[in-house]
Amino acid sequence: MQVVASRAPPLSVSQWLNTTEALDLVALRGRAVLLHAFQMLCPGCVAHGIPQALRVYQSFPADEVMVIGLHTVFEHHDVMNAEALRVFLSEYRIPFPVGIDQAATDGPVPLTMRAYGLRGTPSFVLIDPDGCIRLQHFGQIDDLLLGVAIGRLYGGDRFSQ
Amino acid sequence: MQVVASRAPPLSVSQWLNTTEALDLVALRGRAVLLHAFQMLCPGCVAHGIPQALRVYQSFPADEVMVIGLHTVFEHHDVMNAEALRVFLSEYRIPFPVGIDQAATDGPVPLTMRAYGLRGTPSFVLIDPDGCIRLQHFGQIDDLLLGVAIGRLYGGDRFSQ
Amino acid sequence: MQVVASRAPPLSVSQWLNTTEALDLVALRGRAVLLHAFQMLCPGCVAHGIPQALRVYQSFPADEVMVIGLHTVFEHHDVMNAEALRVFLSEYRIPFPVGIDQAATDGPVPLTMRAYGLRGTPSFVLIDPDGCIRLQHFGQIDDLLLGVAIGRLYGGDRFSQ
Amino acid sequence: MQVVASRAPPLSVSQWLNTTEALDLVALRGRAVLLHAFQMLCPGCVAHGIPQALRVYQSFPADEVMVIGLHTVFEHHDVMNAEALRVFLSEYRIPFPVGIDQAATDGPVPLTMRAYGLRGTPSFVLIDPDGCIRLQHFGQIDDLLLGVAIGRLYGGDRFSQ
Repeated sequence: MQVVASRAPPLSVSQWLNTTEALDLVALRGRAVLLHAFQMLCPGCVAHGIPQALRVYQSFPADEVMVIGLHTVFEHHDVMNAEALRVFLSEYRIPFPVGIDQAATDGPVPLTMRAYGLRGTPSFVLIDPDGCIRLQHFGQIDDLLLGVAIGRLYGGDRFSQ
Repeated sequence: MQVVASRAPPLSVSQWLNTTEALDLVALRGRAVLLHAFQMLCPGCVAHGIPQALRVYQSFPADEVMVIGLHTVFEHHDVMNAEALRVFLSEYRIPFPVGIDQAATDGPVPLTMRAYGLRGTPSFVLIDPDGCIRLQHFGQIDDLLLGVAIGRLYGGDRFSQ
Repeated sequence: MQVVASRAPPLSVSQWLNTTEALDLVALRGRAVLLHAFQMLCPGCVAHGIPQALRVYQSFPADEVMVIGLHTVFEHHDVMNAEALRVFLSEYRIPFPVGIDQAATDGPVPLTMRAYGLRGTPSFVLIDPDGCIRLQHFGQIDDLLLGVAIGRLYGGDRFSQ
Repeated sequence: MQVVASRAPPLSVSQWLNTTEALDLVALRGRAVLLHAFQMLCPGCVAHGIPQALRVYQSFPADEVMVIGLHTVFEHHDVMNAEALRVFLSEYRIPFPVGIDQAATDGPVPLTMRAYGLRGTPSFVLIDPDGCIRLQHFGQIDDLLLGVAIGRLYGGDRFSQ
């Protein structure tokens, strides 16, 4: 686990799914944001990352912890396209907003993935209500430790539960 | 889940295992305490409560979150005695301190269980560094929510991880 | 579970993956065949069916129980094409032969799926050494009962283990 | 896994629980018998062996596969006595007959455990309808392989399902 406190870079997203309007981290200030970077054909994402993102989504109101998926395709771009992702989100009944990370013109790694320095999928980035990255993790992370990181953002009595 | 903030009553313990000296909540001020009330022949404790207490024990240094087991026998006292408990702790390789809740002279429910108003086993009680109960839960609780409750005690940068 | 003993229809496969030559049920007489019908974006297949097919694959020599995947796409044909399937098999490290069920010209359900009367994915079909269907199951099936069905094909001492 | 075909030794049982009459392997000829040797404070038995024995118990009528527990205490005899076992069976809602293996006068290993040469707990012994041992296994065994072993006893159409 990597604990950092730098300002979260803006999201470069070519298309949003599961939301009627584009999401902007600046507009989300005041609440925590959990960013889940995944690829639809990544086994660790399907088995662990996405179910965990769903548990967070179901455990908190969106104005306390906003869960956002980020489809950071860095390989097999042809078969993990927007149409395939839309089917995937529907089949897996994923309800939270998902942005398609903007492809780069000069390499396979998309722009947001590059800006955050993500090492692969699945990755989690936890952004605090001030827009700073508090945790960035590649691979599996225990629910207990993810919970602690979320709870620490709200020391005192900010949570409704 | 029941969120409370009253002062944690003292522990009434007839015998301590896995520790060379008796534990006292007042002496533990300054760190969080997770109290896990269980019975050795309670299936929900063995399948869920104790493994979760172990995960907390393994995730935090004892001077940040101190995990304490409390053997709150309120039925079948004859077969869940101190000798049986000692075998149980050894077979299940439970390393954290466990207190045997002091039997009452006027009923089956032991004294600490009664003082905390615990409804059964497994139960978790989370006590903050000031000695106040922050969470008291009977039955299963998600790792994510238990983590949040622990993290909230340490908003800011008190945790080493 | 549906126990039947009719002759297994031939496989209509447009393309084979993970094998250098086409598989033919008649040529496989003399051994049991476990046919696993799946779709790469079917959550129940990914979470349950394919891992179970893998356990069978790893538990028996191929000349006793031959495991064959059948990609029976009956929806979202565009995104579950041969190229996407090849990536899926590689990412999920699926080693057994997989046939792409031949698309029909007059409807979404492919030819083998139609010939067997499969109701959806995941489905398992167990074919005995004489080429007869002994079990056909849609949805999850316990390992214990699948094991019993396989074991019954080999009463006496035909198994090497 | 050890596949054998010797005659199953008789059960030496000091007390039967969950049954009104003593069980005798000779009287059980004509059906398969799954013997599950366990100790109530053995973690592997509680986590794996007993749940698996329960799955077998729930999957077959007793006149096809008879599940019998055998409490083979070879350590900590004082705390794993008959009274404690009775509480254990009740708390864990174990419905199948359980025999207490007859203690030896000349060592810690009880008589049936010794006669079968069991190496520890959990162990499974599968006895065929002719009274011969077909499988004897110490430790965890996959449901799939246990199912195969059961199914092989009934090649042909002896099973009702």
